[in-house]
This record gives sequence, structure tokens and C-alpha cells, in this order.
Amino acid sequence: MTTDPLVVFTPSGKRGHFPTGTPILTAARQLGVDLDSVCGGRGICSKCQITPGYGEFSKHGVTAKDGALSDWNSVEQRYKDKRGLIDGRRLGCQATVQGDIVIDVPPESQVHRQVVRKAASAREMIMDPAVRPYYVEVAEPDMHTPTGDLERLAQALKDQWGIEEVEAGISVLRRLQPMLRKGKWTATVVLHKGHQDKAHRILGIAPGYFDRPLYGLAIDLGSTTIAAHLTDLRTGEVAASSGIMNPQIRFGEDLMSRVSYSMMNPGGDVEMTTAVRTALNALIGTLKAESGVKPQQIMEAVFVCNPVMHHLLLGIDPVELGQAPFALATSGSLSLHAADIELDTINEAARIFILPCIAGHVGADAAAVALSEAPNEQDELTLVVDVGTNAEILLGNKTQVLACSSPTGPAFEGAQISSGQRAAPGAIERIEIDPVTKEPRFQVIGMGLWSNEPGFEAAIAATGVTGICGSGIIEAVAEMRMAGLLDSKGLIGSPEQTGTPRCILEGRTHSYVIYDGTADGGPLITVTQTDIRAIQLAKSALYAGARLLMDEMGTDTVDRVVLAGAFGAHISPKHAMVLGMIPDVPLDKVTSAGNAAGTGARMALCSVAARTSIEKTVRDITKVETAIEPKFQEHFVNANAIPHATDPFTILRSNTPLPDALFNTQGSDDGGGRRRRRRA
Amino acid sequence: MTTDPLVVFTPSGKRGHFPTGTPILTAARQLGVDLDSVCGGRGICSKCQITPGYGEFSKHGVTAKDGALSDWNSVEQRYKDKRGLIDGRRLGCQATVQGDIVIDVPPESQVHRQVVRKAASAREMIMDPAVRPYYVEVAEPDMHTPTGDLERLAQALKDQWGIEEVEAGISVLRRLQPMLRKGKWTATVVLHKGHQDKAHRILGIAPGYFDRPLYGLAIDLGSTTIAAHLTDLRTGEVAASSGIMNPQIRFGEDLMSRVSYSMMNPGGDVEMTTAVRTALNALIGTLKAESGVKPQQIMEAVFVCNPVMHHLLLGIDPVELGQAPFALATSGSLSLHAADIELDTINEAARIFILPCIAGHVGADAAAVALSEAPNEQDELTLVVDVGTNAEILLGNKTQVLACSSPTGPAFEGAQISSGQRAAPGAIERIEIDPVTKEPRFQVIGMGLWSNEPGFEAAIAATGVTGICGSGIIEAVAEMRMAGLLDSKGLIGSPEQTGTPRCILEGRTHSYVIYDGTADGGPLITVTQTDIRAIQLAKSALYAGARLLMDEMGTDTVDRVVLAGAFGAHISPKHAMVLGMIPDVPLDKVTSAGNAAGTGARMALCSVAARTSIEKTVRDITKVETAIEPKFQEHFVNANAIPHATDPFTILRSNTPLPDALFNTQGSDDGGGRRRRRRA
Repeated sequence: MTTDPLVVFTPSGKRGHFPTGTPILTAARQLGVDLDSVCGGRGICSKCQITPGYGEFSKHGVTAKDGALSDWNSVEQRYKDKRGLIDGRRLGCQATVQGDIVIDVPPESQVHRQVVRKAASAREMIMDPAVRPYYVEVAEPDMHTPTGDLERLAQALKDQWGIEEVEAGISVLRRLQPMLRKGKWTATVVLHKGHQDKAHRILGIAPGYFDRPLYGLAIDLGSTTIAAHLTDLRTGEVAASSGIMNPQIRFGEDLMSRVSYSMMNPGGDVEMTTAVRTALNALIGTLKAESGVKPQQIMEAVFVCNPVMHHLLLGIDPVELGQAPFALATSGSLSLHAADIELDTINEAARIFILPCIAGHVGADAAAVALSEAPNEQDELTLVVDVGTNAEILLGNKTQVLACSSPTGPAFEGAQISSGQRAAPGAIERIEIDPVTKEPRFQVIGMGLWSNEPGFEAAIAATGVTGICGSGIIEAVAEMRMAGLLDSKGLIGSPEQTGTPRCILEGRTHSYVIYDGTADGGPLITVTQTDIRAIQLAKSALYAGARLLMDEMGTDTVDRVVLAGAFGAHISPKHAMVLGMIPDVPLDKVTSAGNAAGTGARMALCSVAARTSIEKTVRDITKVETAIEPKFQEHFVNANAIPHATDPFTILRSNTPLPDALFNTQGSDDGGGRRRRRRA
Repeated sequence: MTTDPLVVFTPSGKRGHFPTGTPILTAARQLGVDLDSVCGGRGICSKCQITPGYGEFSKHGVTAKDGALSDWNSVEQRYKDKRGLIDGRRLGCQATVQGDIVIDVPPESQVHRQVVRKAASAREMIMDPAVRPYYVEVAEPDMHTPTGDLERLAQALKDQWGIEEVEAGISVLRRLQPMLRKGKWTATVVLHKGHQDKAHRILGIAPGYFDRPLYGLAIDLGSTTIAAHLTDLRTGEVAASSGIMNPQIRFGEDLMSRVSYSMMNPGGDVEMTTAVRTALNALIGTLKAESGVKPQQIMEAVFVCNPVMHHLLLGIDPVELGQAPFALATSGSLSLHAADIELDTINEAARIFILPCIAGHVGADAAAVALSEAPNEQDELTLVVDVGTNAEILLGNKTQVLACSSPTGPAFEGAQISSGQRAAPGAIERIEIDPVTKEPRFQVIGMGLWSNEPGFEAAIAATGVTGICGSGIIEAVAEMRMAGLLDSKGLIGSPEQTGTPRCILEGRTHSYVIYDGTADGGPLITVTQTDIRAIQLAKSALYAGARLLMDEMGTDTVDRVVLAGAFGAHISPKHAMVLGMIPDVPLDKVTSAGNAAGTGARMALCSVAARTSIEKTVRDITKVETAIEPKFQEHFVNANAIPHATDPFTILRSNTPLPDALFNTQGSDDGGGRRRRRRA
């Protein structure tokens, strides 16, 4: 029978007997308890803080008496005096076992701490980054056993951290000798080990104990916007987020125009590559200015993007992505150096990780959405649509996941819309039309008031009403449909047919006036027939893609719809459903996942295991190519109607009035459904 | 009982039964016979040529009848018509087994062919390079199984060549898609796999079958000269060799002066790094011009060098190598990219391999000598000295190998000698002094005549006699000793003491006149007392180093001496022995290994196995640091005498007269032995 004291760790519940005098950190390591340490138990880093519990713990069968931990030694006391410790906390590397004790490991002392995401799905993220700092004490050189400084550093990492294999590039080799001497043979080294690497690679070295946090960038490189999150690699917390327009827009609004630009202009791909890399460096500059983080602290960047952006980021001519069979240069994930893509505003040793692409039209951004929303872990059949200039669509559950992309074009983002504009102050973002009076009221971005409420005019004086943003146009079209201003084929009725003078004749078709600011020199904001056609094309492409996946799955219904994408966060589920953008499900089954691609990027940045996981998921996904499926065209034509020509949308109709007037009295279609699809 | 035909391969003797119709290449692969192929059996590359043997082979128990191989098929015939085949040769991939047959694999069809080195030791080299071309047929992209081009190329390499893991950098990714399409889904890829690599890395890709040979550089980067051999990576043959002065000489003649330069001048190390890299690119330019090889064909460079050159090549400040404990930044071998050391005159994807260093003063050049001369494989106790500005010394046999370096300085290379000059036309390289008349005769570089032979004067008219090169000065000093002009302490006698007016008074000491060209406005070439002192210092350092290793080994004698180094090739063993440069062994046991470091570099270039082997050898070598061994100073002082103050040199004295006059009549030493040693 053992007489050694019992140590119980919470919250893990792991327990064991240890000889008197065993440091708590040692006990934790022997039991496999997740207790952090950067300095290797030298009382420097304070990452191993623990909270001892005294008294009766009947649940654990332990009574912890005063004196169950050793008194404060000089190292621990010095740390407390110099840097401070929360009351009740001890340093796990200094406090030793003296009697039975319960030790709580607070979340911030766990290496693999869980980070609860604030997004709706509330999935947890485990910190497991590729880049971590390690403090080491290195043996001094000895003429009698003449090994190099690097070899002695590698031995120290092996002895003190169990790291078997280490490699270093030439820039680290150049700094190694002065750093080790400056730190008097102690140093903090930053190591990187990707999910496929055999060895840890030394990215940096600083003399002594270096406690400035390290950061990574999670970057969602979209056709229209680039969003980046500067993330603390210890905690997973976002220190700063920022976005910037993708300057490639000047070469073409959608992806296919950019591929065409490259085809028509020799060197065009190089221009676009330079443009996006310059923008990335500018964006990183903004993040650094906002957060005060230094370039040297940023050690990794993870990218998600569609295939065309993927190739243009890498400097690969995207020409093959513009024509069948849409071959990617590489579909696997990529591990690169910052210099490979000319990111010169972060640590020069920093690493780049790019998520795998799913197919020639379904990129690393879709892979990131799959990582974030995990349809492969759902019981319910879940449809995930990432709405942007191109829509990424995933459909699946635990049994199978399908993926495709569909060329919605930029209409949903307010582009190609007569009064459309980017989401900015002055833009109409919400709209309601009274079904009786046919009068609209609206809200503009940056203000809580409706346009018919007192004080609205005064409140908008500064910005004016300038246009309609992406979510506004969707609401406008859906409201027009519900108010009987628009028929199921997408035709705007005449003043006579609708009974409102707000339907005005422009050329041979009608427009609906939402706001007339012309008296004060402002704009006349209308929804035109051409706008309706653009929205119809976009939503038909989106719905046809989803329908194609449902065909492949052998189903006519889905259980749940997740709207992802920065824009998806602002779409009203009801209006999206009226438009027939998404399949008919109860409205409470439509949720927004926010920027799911960006979240996926952040997960991959914070976890090597997530990288392994998404590679497997991508391999398992069934890829569906919309461009070669004859049924896509049929689905596209049927989806042109609002909400749909053949699908019943029974659930929607049961609680939403959809007047069934038809305004085309000549009995011919005006051509909206016959326009050729294009690839965004 | 099998009725399948029997195939016997020579020279391996491997044999097996194969079904009628089996291609010879297939049979060879199944038996593990070393038969090359680059195109993978498609009748394109002709690397699998074999010579069928017909008739009675009683040794193998085989009778091969006509028709034992298939008739020429159209592929084989087309190859022969277009490119030609040696009579009796067939393509192993096209000719199939029809009956019992003996197949000879000629050396040039073996992948791992042996290359017999021309050097004295005649060791064999097995071709096993890190860089090899592979021809592949790649599957075309398919929208239904959308993998990237890289992934399909990797699959082809796996299926067609058994290569499990492939990786590619961004520059290859950029070229991949156009190359595969240009070659109609066939390509030749150049792969690199170093001795520690898990994956093959794609260095280059060319459309279709690409048959220009690939080359590597074996570079011996010395303190004074840089020598490079441009080597065919298939055959191991040297296409061109060239040398260049190390331009760092302007920062200091020996290594320690260069380290001092770096210490005294901030940025001095960068200047020296730039200088040596510029010189390397110039040297490579010369090799390409000589051979007609294109930069793109040069895929790897292997370096050997001493530790200071090693650090300066890498851009590491060598300051730590200038003071105890002489710590290297890294002692392990290094695998780098050409850009890491700014080699921009070879393929941009080319790889760099640098051999491991043995210790802070015993570099990768000594490791290369160990690889080339393999003292660890000898039964006899072998002393290998690599004579240059710094001497690398190895002593060992199968049981143990010891290594050290010793600071000989540049005297052996003709520097710091009053009439010394580099080896060039006009330089005296051989000399004899008549022991009776004390008259010299000599030969100059580039001419077979002795100076006392008819026609000499006419023959040297063009160049004149300009000075004495390194091997010349050693012969001169040794001949002076044998002729009684120089006593055992290194003092030149007066005309009275020696009986010759060629001993002339210069200041307070005497010089010996070898050649007086002053009448025609030419030089007066003498050996001065200062010259003798410089040679004494150099040879004492060399001998003391060897003696120290013998002490460590517990022996007073060695069995064999190998003189390595470009200069070692020109030293006369007898004269070296008279000087006491090397321990006393029979003259037929002193051999020259030529540029052993360069040969070691070439072996490492041509064989991945050699790289593994030298890493192990270096780990096993016992390192001896001359700077901290008190006995070194004692050995150094005793070695100052010519040949030696205390070691008897019995074998030498038994066949060589060494007059024992002492010219110092004042009974005091003139200080030669008291001068402080310096580190070269």
C-alpha cells in the first residue's frame, strides 16, 4: 500500500499518488494533464499557474489540509513580487506535493485550451497551433566534444521538451551564435511543425526568456473583399480584424472576367498577382497599426480562397480554370514561406498555410466552410451556402457530404444593380412595402430609424440616402413580390396593374421608386426591371446548385439551411425564402454562420489537428461540377420564377402571402429566363 | 515443374524463370537487377540497353538459341533507325523473353554503375545521385474526379516509378500546367531526394522526354584557391574542372587574418561573404563556357571547405571560430537552396549540399578527405595529411580514426617566401644540389629540361625564370640540407663553412643563390635564412599535429602516409621526409591522393549513400584540438629541427645522407624555434 500523497486534478479528474516534494507540473505531465509551460519549469513564464483547493472534497474522496503544498520558495516569491499572481494561484513548477491535494488547472494554463466561438453553431476550437515558443537552456561549447551551437540547441530541445528532430534555415543559423551568447546560453526559440512535417523548424530565436505573444493571420481572400484576422497563437483571441477591397476588381468584377483578362493580356496574371499581394501587405499594415503588434511577432498566415484567387495568390496563371475540365495546378493544401508570396510585412521566417481546394470551382474557401460548419458531423441534412460573388454550396450529414459552386455573380453584393452600392452609411439595408398602400419604408446603414419615423430626415442629413446595398436589394425584391408589385415571373407591374404611381415607366419596362431625393439634388432610388433580372439570375444559379446536390443525394427536401459568408449574415431568411434563393424549410431552420470561411481559416490557424481533419473531409467530399450537369440548366430555368416555377414552397406559402397576378398581358416571356448563364 | 524460359543476367549472376513475352526490363526489375530506365519502358530513352548472349553457357547451365529474344518491334526499330544502336545491343524494355537466354547489362546501362577513380587508391564510386530525371505519362484532368495536376503527376510517379511522396515548390507549380499540356500529358521531371529527406522534391519539369544530361558541381572551397568540377550526374564523369583564386585573400592571407578582419571591421564578414559568392559565380561561368553546359542543366552543388570558409560561405560571422572554444554555428551537414548562398548562375531550383564539419578547426574539407581516403577502412595505420594553408590531419585504421588541424600557414604554397610565387610557367618546381660541388640544377614549370641541359636557355627565353613555387621551395630546402649547406637547426652556412660562393651574406645571415639572372635584368633567386624559418614553422606545425594524433593513438610509428591536397600531388615524398614534414616510413609507403577533398566532394555529389556514410564517419571520428593540447607546443619545438630534434628518422637516414654539421659557432640558437605559433 502506498503512503504517497494523492493529487487530483480538475477539471480533468486525473489523479495519482506522488512522492512528497514532486512539483505539481511534474505530476501533471506524468498523468498527461494539460498544464502549460514555456520556460520548462524554471519559474519564469508563469504559464503553469494552478489553483490548489483545500478542505473536504467528498466527490474526489480527498481532504486537503493546510500545508498540502510546499511553502513559497524564493523563485515563486520573486515571480509574485515582480509580476504579481492572482490570489490563490501558485506556480505549478515551484509548488511541490506535501499531502493530499486537489489542483484546479484554470483554462488559461491549458495548452490545448478550448475556445468557445461566439457564432451561432457554438462549436468549440482546441488550441493546437503549428507555431509555439520554447524556452531552453543550451549547453556551452566544449572543445573536447566539438559540436555546433545548432546541434547543442537541438539536444536541449530534445532533453527539455522531447522534440526529436529540429531543422533551421540559413537566416536562423546566421543569428544563432550571437543570440545564444547574449542570452548566456538560454534562449526562447519559436518552432513550427505543420501537420505533415517530420521535423520542427526553427523560425526564430531570442536571447533568454521572451514573453511577447506570437500571432498568426487568418485570411479569407475573396473575389471582392479580403478579410484578415490577427489572432493570438496562444489564446486564439482575435487582436484585430480588418477588410480591404480586392484591388483585382479593376481587372474584372467576377472571377471569369479575371481569367479572361489573363487570357487576353499576356502578363495579366502577373499584374493581378502583384495587385493582390500588395493589397495583402497593406491590409496587414492596418492590422498592425490597430493592434500595436510588431511584424516580427506574426509567424504564420493561413489562407482560404476560391480556386482562381488561390492561383492568382500563388502566381499561377488561372487560365486552366476558365475552361473545361477546370484543372487546378494543385488541389492539396500548401505549406510555403512568406517570401514565396511576397508577404514582406510579417516575420521573414513566417510560414504560409493554404487550405486544400475541393475542385476546380470549389475552393479552399469552401473547404474552410466545411471545417467551420462541419456538415459531415450533422444528423440533420444540412445545406450550407456561402453567398458571395460565387456561391459555395455544401449539402450533407454524417453519411455523406456533397459540394459544388455556382456562379451567382455580384448582384447579391449590390453590384450590377442600378441603385446598388457597397454596404456603407447611406445605403438602404432594410425595406418593407405595405401590401395595401404599396408605400415603402426603409432603414439605412448606421441608423436605427425607419424612414417613416419622426427624426429620420434630420438623422440622415449628414449622409443622405445614397443607394441600396446587397441585403437591401434582396428585401426590396421580396417585398415587391409580397406586395403584388412583381409577378411570379419577375415582371414589375404598371401603375394601372399595381395601383401605385411609384411604378413608373422607364423605356419599355417599369421601375419601382423607393426614394425620391431629386427635389434636394439627391438620387432617385428605384428597383428597375433590369435589377430584377440580375437578382433572378443570381438566385437561380444559387438555387439550381443546391437543387443539383439534392438530386445527387436523392432528396427533395433538406432539414436545415446555413447561410454563410459575410453577406449571409445580413440576409433576412424570410426574404431569401420568398425570393426562392434557398429550399423551402421552416424559417427557424435557417441560420446564419457569419463569415464561416474566415472562421475555418482561424480554426486551421489555431490547430494543426484541424488541418489534418479538413484534408480528410475534402478527400471524402463528393464533388459535383455544375458546368457539365445537364440538369443544372433545367434547375436554373425553373428557379427563375419567384419563388419557383415547379417547386411548391408549401411551408413558405403557408405563412406568407404571395399574390399570383401575372403582369405580362402579351403572353410572352420577356426573356429573363433565356439569358445565358455565366460563370462568376 | 516450370516450363517458363530461364533468364540469366550478367555480371550480377541473378537468374529467374519468366513467362514467354516478358520484357527483359520487367524481368530485371523483378530480380532486382540494376538496369536503368528513364522513360519507364517506352522505348524512348535507350538507357536500358542490354547485350543478349547466344550459344552454350556451361557456366550458367544455359543454351541460348536464336529466337530466344523477340524480333525487333516497331518501337525498337524506330529507335535504331533514328538514333542508332551498337551492334548486338537491344532495348531491354522492348525485347521480350522467348526462350532461355543470357543477358549482359553493360556498365552504362546500370543505374548504380561503378566509376573507377583514376587516383592512386583506385577506390570505386557507386553512382547514386540525389538528383535524377524521370519520364512519366500523366493522367489528364477529369471533372468528375477533380484532382490537381500536381496530384496526378504524383500519382504517375507512384504508379510508374514507385515514388511514394512528392513535393513541389511554388516555381514548379507555376510551370506545371503549361509543361504538361505542351508535352501532351508526358513530361520529364527532375527529382531531388537527399539522404535525410522523406519526400522527393520536384526541381524541374520539361514537356515530353528530355534527354539533355544533368550536372552537379563538386566544389572545394579553400582559403587560397577554389576548385570546382562540373560533373555529369548520370555517369560521374567530369565535364570541366576549373580553379580560381579566393578573392578573400585581400582581407587576409590565412584564415585567422580573415577572422580578425571580421572582428575589427563591422560588416567585414559580409564583405568576405559577398566576395566568395561572386567568385563562385564567376568560376561557374568559366565551367559553363568550357563545357557548353547550360545553367538550367546544373541541378546541385556540393561544397567542402574548412570551418571559416564554411561560415563565410553561409554568411555566418566566423568570429566564434577565432577564439576558444572555437564553436561552430552548426557542425552537421546542410541541405540548402541555391538562392540561400546566392548562386544565381545555375538552375534556380538547384540544391546545395555542404558536408559536415568535424570540429571548430577541422572542417568539411577534412570530412571529404576522410570520405575519399577512408582511413576508417584501412588495415594499415594510415596518416592522411591534406596540405594547404591549413593542414587537415587524419590518423586511423578500421579500429579508430582521429582528426585535427594544424596552422601551417601559406609557406608551403610559396607565399611568405622571398622568391616564392604561385605555381605558373617560369616558376622553379624541382631542384637538385650536387653534394660535392654544391651546384644546383632545376626545372621550371611547363618544361621538361633541367637547367644544366643543352637548350634550356633557349627554352626559357619566353617566360624567364621568375621564382620558386611551393614544391620547389620544399625541394630546395631539403636539397640544401642533404648537400650540407644547411644544418639540422636550419642555419645556412657561410661560404667558408660550406665551401661554395653561392652562400652569400645578406645582412647578418646567409642566403643560397639558385639562379642569378641579374646580368640580363632578371631576378636573383635565392633561398634566404628567413625562408628557411618560414618553412620550419610550417613543417613543425604539420609534424606536431601528426605527432599529437600518434600520441592519442598510443603509437610512435605509422604504416602509411597519404599526401592529399592539390599541392600534395606535387610534393616529392623523399624531400618531404628530409624536411621532417611527415613521420619516418619507407618512401614507397608515401603516396599522393591528389585533391582528396575535391574527390570527396565529387563522391558526395554522385552518391546519396556517401553522404550518409560520411555523416556516420564524422560522428565516429575522435576530434583532437591542437590549440589546447600542451604537448602540441613541445612537439612543435622538437619538430623545428631538420628532420627532427628527437625522433630518430632511422629509415630515412639508412638511405639518405644527412650531414651533421652545425654552423652556429656562437652556440646560441637564432630564435627559429622560439617564434610563436599562429593559426592559419
